Amino acid sequence: MSTEAFVTASVTPLDNLATLSPLEVARLQDASQGGLYRLFRQCSLAVLNCGSELDSTKQVLERYRDFDIRISQKHRGLQLELINAPASAFVDGEIIQGIREHLFSVLRDLLYVGDELDDVCHGLDETGAITNTVFQILRHADMFRPHVKPNLVVCWGGHSIGHEEYEYTKKVGYELGLRRLNICTGCGPGAMKGPMKGAAIAHAKQRIRDARYVGISEPGIIAAESPNPIVNELLVMPDIEKRLEAFVRLGHGIVVFPGGAGTAEEILYILGVLLHEKNNNLPFPLIFTGPTGSEAYFETVDRFIRHTLGDAAAKRYEIIVGDPQRVALRMQEGLHNVTEYRKATSESFHFNWQISVPLMFQQPFEPTHDNMAQLRLFRDQTTCDLASNLRRALSGIVAGNVKEPGVRAIEEHGPFELCGEKALVDPLDELLASFVQQRRMKLDYQDYVPCYRLSGIEHSAA
Amino acid sequence: MSTEAFVTASVTPLDNLATLSPLEVARLQDASQGGLYRLFRQCSLAVLNCGSELDSTKQVLERYRDFDIRISQKHRGLQLELINAPASAFVDGEIIQGIREHLFSVLRDLLYVGDELDDVCHGLDETGAITNTVFQILRHADMFRPHVKPNLVVCWGGHSIGHEEYEYTKKVGYELGLRRLNICTGCGPGAMKGPMKGAAIAHAKQRIRDARYVGISEPGIIAAESPNPIVNELLVMPDIEKRLEAFVRLGHGIVVFPGGAGTAEEILYILGVLLHEKNNNLPFPLIFTGPTGSEAYFETVDRFIRHTLGDAAAKRYEIIVGDPQRVALRMQEGLHNVTEYRKATSESFHFNWQISVPLMFQQPFEPTHDNMAQLRLFRDQTTCDLASNLRRALSGIVAGNVKEPGVRAIEEHGPFELCGEKALVDPLDELLASFVQQRRMKLDYQDYVPCYRLSGIEHSAA
Amino acid sequence: MSTEAFVTASVTPLDNLATLSPLEVARLQDASQGGLYRLFRQCSLAVLNCGSELDSTKQVLERYRDFDIRISQKHRGLQLELINAPASAFVDGEIIQGIREHLFSVLRDLLYVGDELDDVCHGLDETGAITNTVFQILRHADMFRPHVKPNLVVCWGGHSIGHEEYEYTKKVGYELGLRRLNICTGCGPGAMKGPMKGAAIAHAKQRIRDARYVGISEPGIIAAESPNPIVNELLVMPDIEKRLEAFVRLGHGIVVFPGGAGTAEEILYILGVLLHEKNNNLPFPLIFTGPTGSEAYFETVDRFIRHTLGDAAAKRYEIIVGDPQRVALRMQEGLHNVTEYRKATSESFHFNWQISVPLMFQQPFEPTHDNMAQLRLFRDQTTCDLASNLRRALSGIVAGNVKEPGVRAIEEHGPFELCGEKALVDPLDELLASFVQQRRMKLDYQDYVPCYRLSGIEHSAA
Amino acid sequence: MSTEAFVTASVTPLDNLATLSPLEVARLQDASQGGLYRLFRQCSLAVLNCGSELDSTKQVLERYRDFDIRISQKHRGLQLELINAPASAFVDGEIIQGIREHLFSVLRDLLYVGDELDDVCHGLDETGAITNTVFQILRHADMFRPHVKPNLVVCWGGHSIGHEEYEYTKKVGYELGLRRLNICTGCGPGAMKGPMKGAAIAHAKQRIRDARYVGISEPGIIAAESPNPIVNELLVMPDIEKRLEAFVRLGHGIVVFPGGAGTAEEILYILGVLLHEKNNNLPFPLIFTGPTGSEAYFETVDRFIRHTLGDAAAKRYEIIVGDPQRVALRMQEGLHNVTEYRKATSESFHFNWQISVPLMFQQPFEPTHDNMAQLRLFRDQTTCDLASNLRRALSGIVAGNVKEPGVRAIEEHGPFELCGEKALVDPLDELLASFVQQRRMKLDYQDYVPCYRLSGIEHSAA
Repeated sequence: MSTEAFVTASVTPLDNLATLSPLEVARLQDASQGGLYRLFRQCSLAVLNCGSELDSTKQVLERYRDFDIRISQKHRGLQLELINAPASAFVDGEIIQGIREHLFSVLRDLLYVGDELDDVCHGLDETGAITNTVFQILRHADMFRPHVKPNLVVCWGGHSIGHEEYEYTKKVGYELGLRRLNICTGCGPGAMKGPMKGAAIAHAKQRIRDARYVGISEPGIIAAESPNPIVNELLVMPDIEKRLEAFVRLGHGIVVFPGGAGTAEEILYILGVLLHEKNNNLPFPLIFTGPTGSEAYFETVDRFIRHTLGDAAAKRYEIIVGDPQRVALRMQEGLHNVTEYRKATSESFHFNWQISVPLMFQQPFEPTHDNMAQLRLFRDQTTCDLASNLRRALSGIVAGNVKEPGVRAIEEHGPFELCGEKALVDPLDELLASFVQQRRMKLDYQDYVPCYRLSGIEHSAA
Repeated sequence: MSTEAFVTASVTPLDNLATLSPLEVARLQDASQGGLYRLFRQCSLAVLNCGSELDSTKQVLERYRDFDIRISQKHRGLQLELINAPASAFVDGEIIQGIREHLFSVLRDLLYVGDELDDVCHGLDETGAITNTVFQILRHADMFRPHVKPNLVVCWGGHSIGHEEYEYTKKVGYELGLRRLNICTGCGPGAMKGPMKGAAIAHAKQRIRDARYVGISEPGIIAAESPNPIVNELLVMPDIEKRLEAFVRLGHGIVVFPGGAGTAEEILYILGVLLHEKNNNLPFPLIFTGPTGSEAYFETVDRFIRHTLGDAAAKRYEIIVGDPQRVALRMQEGLHNVTEYRKATSESFHFNWQISVPLMFQQPFEPTHDNMAQLRLFRDQTTCDLASNLRRALSGIVAGNVKEPGVRAIEEHGPFELCGEKALVDPLDELLASFVQQRRMKLDYQDYVPCYRLSGIEHSAA
Repeated sequence: MSTEAFVTASVTPLDNLATLSPLEVARLQDASQGGLYRLFRQCSLAVLNCGSELDSTKQVLERYRDFDIRISQKHRGLQLELINAPASAFVDGEIIQGIREHLFSVLRDLLYVGDELDDVCHGLDETGAITNTVFQILRHADMFRPHVKPNLVVCWGGHSIGHEEYEYTKKVGYELGLRRLNICTGCGPGAMKGPMKGAAIAHAKQRIRDARYVGISEPGIIAAESPNPIVNELLVMPDIEKRLEAFVRLGHGIVVFPGGAGTAEEILYILGVLLHEKNNNLPFPLIFTGPTGSEAYFETVDRFIRHTLGDAAAKRYEIIVGDPQRVALRMQEGLHNVTEYRKATSESFHFNWQISVPLMFQQPFEPTHDNMAQLRLFRDQTTCDLASNLRRALSGIVAGNVKEPGVRAIEEHGPFELCGEKALVDPLDELLASFVQQRRMKLDYQDYVPCYRLSGIEHSAA
Repeated sequence: MSTEAFVTASVTPLDNLATLSPLEVARLQDASQGGLYRLFRQCSLAVLNCGSELDSTKQVLERYRDFDIRISQKHRGLQLELINAPASAFVDGEIIQGIREHLFSVLRDLLYVGDELDDVCHGLDETGAITNTVFQILRHADMFRPHVKPNLVVCWGGHSIGHEEYEYTKKVGYELGLRRLNICTGCGPGAMKGPMKGAAIAHAKQRIRDARYVGISEPGIIAAESPNPIVNELLVMPDIEKRLEAFVRLGHGIVVFPGGAGTAEEILYILGVLLHEKNNNLPFPLIFTGPTGSEAYFETVDRFIRHTLGDAAAKRYEIIVGDPQRVALRMQEGLHNVTEYRKATSESFHFNWQISVPLMFQQPFEPTHDNMAQLRLFRDQTTCDLASNLRRALSGIVAGNVKEPGVRAIEEHGPFELCGEKALVDPLDELLASFVQQRRMKLDYQDYVPCYRLSGIEHSAA
């Protein structure tokens, strides 16, 4: 009925974010290099753009180039002025409440990360400091429920999956929700939205009023994967590595649905971490699942893992096809083991301090052509290190597909060059080819041009 | 995964129903004529049987003939023992919370209606006494929100509609929910469930935690239209006429989706009431709507109304096809008028005392062959009275289709004989024929044998 | 500062009482014999008159003879118009919130008792029917907390005690409150207010937000003992006998502070009930306590009980002087026993169905000169019956002191004549004399003229 | 009844403080110079010692020299082990809930101030940075209610006042509470407790469940003025100057009851600030009040102010004797003006950014003998500066009376030497002498030996 694409409106903040200091307001308005304006504008736009089909940050930014966000102060706190904002965030001119909350979650996280975190980790080594930072951000965002038994299930999977797969993620979410489990995802559409929708209906039937729909994003991905408004706890982590660590330390188990390169990156991350020797005995439920008809996907992934990381890696996950109830029951069993283990080892329920995330998985990886070219894709390293390098390769490919700087770099310099041992590069090639074939790489798959070039070497050359 | 069809379990009551007196417990356990056991068992079974495809009360009762419900008392209140209950009401052996609430709503309403209501209406005439009874039951069930602006939208329509129509009801519910409106239905599947599901997602996005999904049933229909567990306020009225009056006095506007004879009965009820001269100036938003592709349905209904009740009747409703957003916006406008009218006339927001429901619409109609045969289907009466007689005719047909005593009567004595003026009976025949043709009469339409026979007389014979 | 004694104001109702039917409004406005207006006005005045020093209903009614209360209806529910109301109920022209709640509690109870209760007890004998009525009124007033362990301590005692005794009741309330116990009293000043004040401070320290300060009154006494506004659950029972039964079935233990004839009446009631053979094994903590300096009071009472009801009766209570902490600890132990007993016998926590209250204690006693003269004060009866007769004698004396019809009867016909066995009448005489001497009979003790005359006979004449 | 003076117990944290990081736990346990252990132990002891009569930090520390506090970690978060803690904090071995909350408020504030605050003020000048720090601490402690109209009344006054004065502070608190105002004090006994007790009863009558009883302390004073457990929002500011700034920026008006040197220090602080030219037009209700019989106190104070700061200073406050209702009404008027002013100037309701607190009032003053001797008590400076110097003089005297390092310094080096212009020193001498005479200087006034020596010079020597 409404045909306008842009809306200009004022938004008052939630109570707990109505109390900024003049200093903070100044920083949000500061468009200089050190200021937060640019990042704040971009993330706000992403939040407002939910429901859009645009898949790349660049496209989003171009379409809404006239969008602006301003802060004005009133005696009762502050007010955001949204200028030329996406109309889909509004109903009859009034912003949807869930999106209003997201706007202020963005503001909260950007201010906190940019400011207060500088010196809180004195005395810790680098890996400890990064973990402590992740902890601080989560706590500041009020993400912990300290006395609640492990019940937060992370759902990973593609944001542009087909109708059958989408309906399946809803059914899995429904069965998880019937068992009073909560959902955490990367907060975009597709496999990140379906489980929440299904769980929401189940939670309504179970009369659970404080259900959690946690979305964890980061500035580089948020525009391509706008949080859906069901997310009622949105978190914007400073970079992709901290986002992944947040999933692993906050969530209590993971369900992986079919997806593309991004999902494969996440699989390599969690497997790489779990394969670290310090995590050998740590229970961590990990289920790969999809509807009947999606077997091919998991066969490819499973084969890739066995060829690159070995059969031991395959013992860390379970594949279930076309049985949402079984997924929920197996996850429930897994969470029960997690609960028992944490009790036995005096670990908290709300943050997994015990899991060891090696530094390689924590350090931000910038996918420049140089860094991509230097990735060591050879088997003369620990499985954990190899997983980390493969993860970085896929991370770069995701960036080249949908992230703004990545897309620009590919436009300028051509595809990334990846080189490695043939026994590794071939399975990777096969995996990526199957994603393209299954139309999992981008929404506009017709025009998809790979952003990478793989070359395999017969023997390892350490 | 679970293959058992029956579950035996104990259910503890909600706090506000944990405090029965020994006298009340005895009455619920009393299987004699005056006791409540039989009715309590039957309604409880209906509530537990949600999600089933069985369409007739008789079938439900036969399938679960071994079902039993017992009350035992514990120091912390009472407990219900469910024996051989439908497995669909349970998750891993534990009853779904929403269904647990429904069980105790049934108990609450049966006890109240059976007991306390005898003498509360002294000094009122019959029509006043019935309205007062409806009011008392609603208040006792805590259905009033006295200071909240009119926002409760009644949704009527078929319980066995097609996929397209079902998806459409969800979309309408979603648009109503985005505008913070609440939903009230007859609480079965189909058009009674879809709007609630859609609204639930919208309410989640709008962070509305106290959204209302009101279901109003009665013992005769509840087994054929088991309440879906999203219903968070279930009410069991003592008979179909009080149920209809409850819709009209509690709800603030009505949306009618495609349906069968039951929906047509409801349409005749609301039109008959609105056509009463005392209600001439009363604003009451009434919208008939369905997806593109369902135009035929409303054309038939509209033609039937114009032929029988006249064009004036058609001014009381608006038909919207394939535009959920417009339905929501028009309803919102209508509710605004209702609000203004109630303010101007000092009427309460929570109960429409002003609307005049003539006694003919209030008195329970028992659809025996005799009563059906004596219905006056002639035009020598007020439109209001004619609407009432047509409503009763359709009510009888619904009973013959799905209600236990009705089905049994048809089995014994053959179809109901309905006789009237040709100019009325022909449109009625056409209407019912179109329902059969559009497969709206029963779930198992293949075997549908009409439970009525119509015969038209050329001239009115008063 | 404010010098006006009367205030005229409008009061909007609480949500749960904003939904009266026109029939109910009519009954509240009906000043005829069968209507509720007179009673409603009188009880409302009592509630508004809190904080006043006036001790007799008659004085209150005379002072505020121009007070009126009217109900008007508004689109958002009803409104009370208070005309010439006591100014002490208002702060700067606005009614104190607690008093506003009390007004609507009165309205709730009067309507319910007058109306819905007529036929709910069919099939029960007279004693069962009365108990069921008490239960229904309590449940209707939402007085039950079904799953909460016994923690409601009834505090009885005089409304016109001295400063030392008052401070002591606060300290006892404080110690009870520190142990998370709730308070129930007759809801007037003195020993009915002190424990609530003390408990309120303790509950604040323990951060208990849902603490209960239950006040149970009845129309005959409410004007003389206006509820203090700390009472957050006010109940108006229809007569003094049901009020006493409500204390005993709702409360889990009793503390008795010093008081006058009313307190003695309550002591005789609870002892008479506990001495009934059916209650032999029932745990019921009963503690008499007062500050150092008030020993004389309990010595007199104890002597009176031993002389009239025997030493067995004295085993049912414990006397503690000047040790608030010990009172609280002993009560806590007693409540623990109550809890265990109820668990063992499958009794509910929220209503003591088990305790047997003989019919004699349930039937309303009208203290006319005739009825008083006919009381059998002889020992040729069960202790339980004797206690009942003594209770009635004291009840009559309270009526002659402070209740409107009683005071009028005394003014017309002179003091009540009580006659009985010397061995009973002498202790009674001593008891009453000590009350006069200790200034416990009325607030204006200077002018106190006894409203009774006792004559003792040497030998029992059965 | 209980005779033990020490209790050893475990205390689990509140939810929002159950989520410490290992780093934070380590810092709380770190007894070295940079660690928090010593401060945490001392403040915790102060919190546990509420209700004690001990007036000096040193005495408290000595009496409980065996007290220890340890942190242990459990799977469900952490736990505090209290060893040899004051028994008064416990009821039957269980810690009073309010005191438990205080323990964790202390922990919260110490961790935050010690850690996260280092770098949040970049770019601000010193006075802006200090104000920003005050803001950050208040916000971190969740002290802001952004959309609530000004209603927080600061009450200052002595912690060891007499019974009459104490009862009066309760009555003032009661009248403030009846008008729905909240209370903020320095959180010790006496005039810091009375208003809260009175308001608590009034809030109960007004059914205000979210009433605020804010206590603002600092490590140096907390042991001498243990927070009373009614305080439901405890804040421990890092030093006395930030504590005073917190009162002035968080509170909306101030009532001053009679007190000693500490109260006089507070009076000089607020007057000094209000006399700064930037604050000329700022409305700030300031009322000095006490019961009939305490006139002498305010006469002395008023005379002192007029002699030292001039009559203009006296225009900033109003003196009311023996009229609690008038105090409340005048405060209400004042708050109304504050509300209007903030609306007109777009100032927030929750934090008074507008009031200018000169650097001299912000910088911590360490009361060494040297610093005290160098205070400029001459009139050749602005009234604002003079008020600041007088404030420091009184601050030093308070330290010498009750704070640990101050008391120790006096023991070692004898009394502070204060020197200044006779026209200033004489009134100061008179003021202090009157405090001694009125027994306002310390609880053990019998043995009071002044910790200062004043010498006046006839003419100013700039």
